[in-house]
Amino acid sequence: MLLDTRLPAHYIFRGIWPDMARVLLISSFFHFLKLALGAYLPPVPLQLPTILGSLISLLLAFKTNQSYERWWEARKIWGAIVNDSRTLVLQATGFVPEAQLAGPAAPLRALAYRQIAWCYCLGETLRGLDPAATLARYLPEKEVAYAQSQANKPLALLALHTAQLKEWYQLGALNPFQQVQLDATLVRLCDALGQAERLKSTVFPASYRRLVHFFIYLFLLTLSLGLVQTIGLWEIPVLLITASTFFLLERTARELQDPFRNAPTDTPVTALARTVEINLCQLLGEVAAPAPLAAEAFYLL
Amino acid sequence: MLLDTRLPAHYIFRGIWPDMARVLLISSFFHFLKLALGAYLPPVPLQLPTILGSLISLLLAFKTNQSYERWWEARKIWGAIVNDSRTLVLQATGFVPEAQLAGPAAPLRALAYRQIAWCYCLGETLRGLDPAATLARYLPEKEVAYAQSQANKPLALLALHTAQLKEWYQLGALNPFQQVQLDATLVRLCDALGQAERLKSTVFPASYRRLVHFFIYLFLLTLSLGLVQTIGLWEIPVLLITASTFFLLERTARELQDPFRNAPTDTPVTALARTVEINLCQLLGEVAAPAPLAAEAFYLL
Amino acid sequence: MLLDTRLPAHYIFRGIWPDMARVLLISSFFHFLKLALGAYLPPVPLQLPTILGSLISLLLAFKTNQSYERWWEARKIWGAIVNDSRTLVLQATGFVPEAQLAGPAAPLRALAYRQIAWCYCLGETLRGLDPAATLARYLPEKEVAYAQSQANKPLALLALHTAQLKEWYQLGALNPFQQVQLDATLVRLCDALGQAERLKSTVFPASYRRLVHFFIYLFLLTLSLGLVQTIGLWEIPVLLITASTFFLLERTARELQDPFRNAPTDTPVTALARTVEINLCQLLGEVAAPAPLAAEAFYLL
Amino acid sequence: MLLDTRLPAHYIFRGIWPDMARVLLISSFFHFLKLALGAYLPPVPLQLPTILGSLISLLLAFKTNQSYERWWEARKIWGAIVNDSRTLVLQATGFVPEAQLAGPAAPLRALAYRQIAWCYCLGETLRGLDPAATLARYLPEKEVAYAQSQANKPLALLALHTAQLKEWYQLGALNPFQQVQLDATLVRLCDALGQAERLKSTVFPASYRRLVHFFIYLFLLTLSLGLVQTIGLWEIPVLLITASTFFLLERTARELQDPFRNAPTDTPVTALARTVEINLCQLLGEVAAPAPLAAEAFYLL
Amino acid sequence: MLLDTRLPAHYIFRGIWPDMARVLLISSFFHFLKLALGAYLPPVPLQLPTILGSLISLLLAFKTNQSYERWWEARKIWGAIVNDSRTLVLQATGFVPEAQLAGPAAPLRALAYRQIAWCYCLGETLRGLDPAATLARYLPEKEVAYAQSQANKPLALLALHTAQLKEWYQLGALNPFQQVQLDATLVRLCDALGQAERLKSTVFPASYRRLVHFFIYLFLLTLSLGLVQTIGLWEIPVLLITASTFFLLERTARELQDPFRNAPTDTPVTALARTVEINLCQLLGEVAAPAPLAAEAFYLL
Repeated sequence: MLLDTRLPAHYIFRGIWPDMARVLLISSFFHFLKLALGAYLPPVPLQLPTILGSLISLLLAFKTNQSYERWWEARKIWGAIVNDSRTLVLQATGFVPEAQLAGPAAPLRALAYRQIAWCYCLGETLRGLDPAATLARYLPEKEVAYAQSQANKPLALLALHTAQLKEWYQLGALNPFQQVQLDATLVRLCDALGQAERLKSTVFPASYRRLVHFFIYLFLLTLSLGLVQTIGLWEIPVLLITASTFFLLERTARELQDPFRNAPTDTPVTALARTVEINLCQLLGEVAAPAPLAAEAFYLL
Repeated sequence: MLLDTRLPAHYIFRGIWPDMARVLLISSFFHFLKLALGAYLPPVPLQLPTILGSLISLLLAFKTNQSYERWWEARKIWGAIVNDSRTLVLQATGFVPEAQLAGPAAPLRALAYRQIAWCYCLGETLRGLDPAATLARYLPEKEVAYAQSQANKPLALLALHTAQLKEWYQLGALNPFQQVQLDATLVRLCDALGQAERLKSTVFPASYRRLVHFFIYLFLLTLSLGLVQTIGLWEIPVLLITASTFFLLERTARELQDPFRNAPTDTPVTALARTVEINLCQLLGEVAAPAPLAAEAFYLL
Repeated sequence: MLLDTRLPAHYIFRGIWPDMARVLLISSFFHFLKLALGAYLPPVPLQLPTILGSLISLLLAFKTNQSYERWWEARKIWGAIVNDSRTLVLQATGFVPEAQLAGPAAPLRALAYRQIAWCYCLGETLRGLDPAATLARYLPEKEVAYAQSQANKPLALLALHTAQLKEWYQLGALNPFQQVQLDATLVRLCDALGQAERLKSTVFPASYRRLVHFFIYLFLLTLSLGLVQTIGLWEIPVLLITASTFFLLERTARELQDPFRNAPTDTPVTALARTVEINLCQLLGEVAAPAPLAAEAFYLL
Repeated sequence: MLLDTRLPAHYIFRGIWPDMARVLLISSFFHFLKLALGAYLPPVPLQLPTILGSLISLLLAFKTNQSYERWWEARKIWGAIVNDSRTLVLQATGFVPEAQLAGPAAPLRALAYRQIAWCYCLGETLRGLDPAATLARYLPEKEVAYAQSQANKPLALLALHTAQLKEWYQLGALNPFQQVQLDATLVRLCDALGQAERLKSTVFPASYRRLVHFFIYLFLLTLSLGLVQTIGLWEIPVLLITASTFFLLERTARELQDPFRNAPTDTPVTALARTVEINLCQLLGEVAAPAPLAAEAFYLL
Repeated sequence: MLLDTRLPAHYIFRGIWPDMARVLLISSFFHFLKLALGAYLPPVPLQLPTILGSLISLLLAFKTNQSYERWWEARKIWGAIVNDSRTLVLQATGFVPEAQLAGPAAPLRALAYRQIAWCYCLGETLRGLDPAATLARYLPEKEVAYAQSQANKPLALLALHTAQLKEWYQLGALNPFQQVQLDATLVRLCDALGQAERLKSTVFPASYRRLVHFFIYLFLLTLSLGLVQTIGLWEIPVLLITASTFFLLERTARELQDPFRNAPTDTPVTALARTVEINLCQLLGEVAAPAPLAAEAFYLL
């Protein structure tokens, strides 16, 4: 997540150099073509680039909106994860008798730590990182081994949660209603897992990006023809600047599209998992909760 | 689902040839008409095509948005299917006593495989393919026969799920709460089935497509008259290029509209059913889970 | 619902004749006014109709979007009706013991047929048709009499459903959880009923339609003044064509607004009720399920 | 709610007179200023008002959309109230044994009449009217006294509902599940109450209205300067007409914003409460249900 | 929340002075540059700023919409908090036997006051204020101490709620269903808490604000070049006025973005918490409920 501080200029302009270079080449080429062939080129009326310009604007507005929706949906999914993680531990505390909780196995603590591990592990999986270290930090060895044997690690942790609830139910520590109510929380966590995976794996329709780029070049072509013999060498910076606005906007939208790329515009999944860790540790009454995650230069992961 | 790779040009431009040919014909005809009748034709001011152009742009923006919404809704429905398939098996594992699960009939395995069959079968039904082979692969003969006797095969599988829950309940393997909680998962699956069928069977209002095409031709007519005697033979490529942007955008939107056509822009239902298969096999503890579905050249089905 | 076939031209242009005739009159009148008074009329700059044109475009985009939303919401409500009808019968089959289902009274069959009647009857009520024949076809005489005595017939059928559940519960055929779970399905059906009535009875804010028409005539006035002495008699077809695009779009949006008018753009409620009938008959194991509803020339009711 | 009939012209134009008078004054002032100072005024290019015009159009589109959303949300909330009122009585009929219902106290009838009172009373409270007469008509004296002692009367009625459910539960007329299921309906009614209050008490951001008005006057200023010496005295009607379109649209949007003002564009809460009364009376089997509310000249309250 | 009264002008224009000063400097600089270098500057056609202007308009429309959505979502979250606070107390009153409620410890009153404290405390935490005084006013000392020992105070209060429900359940004052139904209300409160924190901590993508500002300056540059030698010194006020519309709109949208900043456009969390206090005190039958919060000059906190 980008913070509300001054963004470094190189961060803003990074990634549009190739397009800008291409525009520079094209506009210079056009300029010299016009010097040579001026008389034969058609005086395209400027209404034409205007029409194309408003078509591109609407297409970019569409892309900007939908990218923002994806980004916001990712944040909402992780918000739900934070809420349901807290709820899971609150519910277990409220349902299971003290006798059961305080035993040497400390099953409530195991549940809470497994949930913390689930949050970190989901974040790392979405970003394509290896969650092995995380699992080892929060889980007993047997559970680490089980999780490592499965392709979908967060799902494996949910299966372990389910097994623990079954055990509590069979021990009589949970009545049937309470088991079902805790299960409803697991259902929501399973939904959140699937939703995050959906956002990660669903590519924004690639054809729109191609179309936007194609239209921008078409727009530059007609604009360049429209400016034939009016503004001379000035045409090159004018085309460059106009093109840069479109390319900048398209790239900004594109970056929001994929919020789990391990990039500065990501949903701050590590920071959110840390929040869950702090909250759950304090609910367990543990003394040493970790500090919130510190931000990088201009963003928070 | 189109992947984020370079799309073949023939894929992008395919499908707008007929319209482009028509535009070529029309613009040539206009050009020669103007050579003959130039003096009698009205010098339509270019503001007129500009107004029409912005009307078309807004109409295309509407179509693009709504098509994207349909595409995204289809993906969400299938995301919910993945989530509820996992939930169904997790819940059954957590509710039914081991004694019941491990028996020779292995009813948990039967449930999971029926759910895998349900996912593949729903995908094939939506795409208009025959699910007979799929059903035979995952279901016992008796169930295949029952499903084949019904018009709506995914619904038949849900009826079989319901019968299994009833049996478990009557055997005492499920308490009343657990039966109802599992039933709630079946209700969500039944909803997802109906939602996918709704998207499949509801035609996007056909009148909008006719209007867009009608407006584009009107726009070209006024633009052509607006360019009378200004740019000569150049008019033909100018009209062609401007028209192509509108037609390309309309076609791109149209393709996203119907996400179950067995086409490259489809929701990747086969890949998602495969994901469900892998997850459920691993939850059952089976050793040999299949590999994820490989992508085609530039898309994933 | 309009099908994806060629729409008859008379269907597309029907309903905008009165407006087109008025535009013809007005533009002819203006033309002759200008012949007489040309020198005294102001040369309105064409930017003015452009501004008005983009205001109208945005207003039409708003109307188009909201009308589409209403149409889509109507379809979603009926999708939910299909889903919950299936769910109701699936749940009853899964909850009520066979002994109870197979009795001479066949109460499960009665429930399913009452649900089929509910779907047809709701569709007919929404379209302002008389559901008497439908009720007589699917319900026993006593229930028909009860429904006919009530103003809101679909609500009366839900009351009969409720009474049947109560009877099953008092006979011990349903345990308390199962009664409540079936009741939850009735709650959703009661919601769908109310939502469909809401869409039917809520008029789209009438002021917007008046404003759009008023703005279009204003636009034509300024455009006509803007074209003073430039394009002569050609002005009449130009005004006619430009006006027709706005009127066509407004009418197309208006038709989607009210999806229960017994018109070609309606939600296909009869076809959906037929789908429910087929599904429920097959779930009951009946041999003779009816065929799906056939489409009319270019639409499906 | 405005009906789909011809709206009186005075209703449409009412409320924009002050702004039109101001525009008339301003444009006359400008006209005479230009007669005097013409040579010193800048020939503002007409692109400037065009840019401002499209900014205003987008701002008005935003306002129109959000006002419509508020209006539609108000209608949805009241739709949910109708549905849950019916559900409450259907559920109570289905859960409570006949013996309990038919007693001299007729507690089911008391519940239904309290629910009818709740609907009327909520509508009157939202519109700032005194619900005393309504309460006296439908409730026993003791309950009227309790409701009058509380600031939030609809909430007081929900507290009385809750007390009745508690009594039924303690008498054994409801089993625990049924109490909780009926309580869930009360939770939804409590939500609807709070949502209606939210719409009533949340002012649409006032700054947008100020900005729209400020931008419209700025637009007229630049347009007036842009028309310097081109169209003479005609400028005054041109400015008036252009301004009126913006003001009309802004006012139409503003009226939809606040759907509980006791004005013609209100959500028809009285008519909906009457519908609930008719439905519930018929469900109770009462002979004399009232007639639906008749519409006023062009609207329904 | 801004009230629907006249906003002070200094409030409207506050915050755009730095940008206006910069625009004044830039336009003066350009003006003198043009006086010196006029002959060498390109006569940029005015279509260029028009295209940029419509791009900025669309970007501002996007920002305005999304900021409004955030503001409205914040209000909805707080609406849900009001509803669920009332529901919690209504449910507890309806479920717990009188004997338990009237005891010397008055546990119902403790629950209600803890819920009031929760609302105030959440509002203060979101605005970055210290909730210590609030906690001390409504809670017994032991609970204050517990809450103060935790980083997330509203979450600590929910843990205290959970503990109270557990106690009631263990005393037999709640049956299992009732415990679960009350727990469902706590789950919704925990969700609302997390949602408010999400809105507070998620920065609106900062890149869009930079882009809008960059585009506005670019637009002014091209407009200034487009007006070369046409309108002389008048150029400075024209640029200032046009720029101010864009900056005003951007700032107005930005203020709605963050509804928990302790600023006049905030969600009125203190007023809403006061509403909850009044409602709950009256439901408890207390005589002295506080008065509603009075508004400031033109806003309500």
